[in-house]
Amino acid sequence: MPELVKYSDSPVIAVKGPITRKILAHGPSLMTVEVSFSDEFVDVPHSHFHDQICVILEGMFELNLNGEMIMMTPGDSIFLPGNVPHCVNSLTPGKLLDIFNPRRDDFLK
Amino acid sequence: MPELVKYSDSPVIAVKGPITRKILAHGPSLMTVEVSFSDEFVDVPHSHFHDQICVILEGMFELNLNGEMIMMTPGDSIFLPGNVPHCVNSLTPGKLLDIFNPRRDDFLK
Repeated sequence: MPELVKYSDSPVIAVKGPITRKILAHGPSLMTVEVSFSDEFVDVPHSHFHDQICVILEGMFELNLNGEMIMMTPGDSIFLPGNVPHCVNSLTPGKLLDIFNPRRDDFLK
Repeated sequence: MPELVKYSDSPVIAVKGPITRKILAHGPSLMTVEVSFSDEFVDVPHSHFHDQICVILEGMFELNLNGEMIMMTPGDSIFLPGNVPHCVNSLTPGKLLDIFNPRRDDFLK
């Protein structure tokens, strides 16, 4: 059934380095996750079977798409099919929204 | 394949009354749409088979969930399974992100 997630109720989860996440609304088919970067950070590409959209909310990022670098600024977004190696590098402090289909059940453990 | 959508490249589409939308990144399984309200607006509930998440970006909204009213402020989000009648009423000017699974192909016609 529909489930409201109040922003203030979602705990800040340490991910690595300057990266934290807050898990927002989700259901079996969809999950939204706010990812915050308190500083610049260069990450290492990873992949997962879930399809993903990344929407930049604040700050400047460089998407590493299998070695190709794509600049992204607020409002920019990209659809990444499952299993494509990718990561985002923060060029400034910033914030983005990651959206997954299906839900990242590994994020809920 | 991955497809970057630059925010400035996505046209502003009139929806109704004070509501406009910008279609952000999408693929067959996922679609993101930014919906802007330039003023207060009371809408009429509708439904669709797509699952949906709504994330409030700016402003104050009231989600009408089959007659139940739910207050939503920035950062709040909700998962709506397909076919549940719903709409959002803007209580102030504001902006939200609608996310769909699968893609709203009717938005691309």
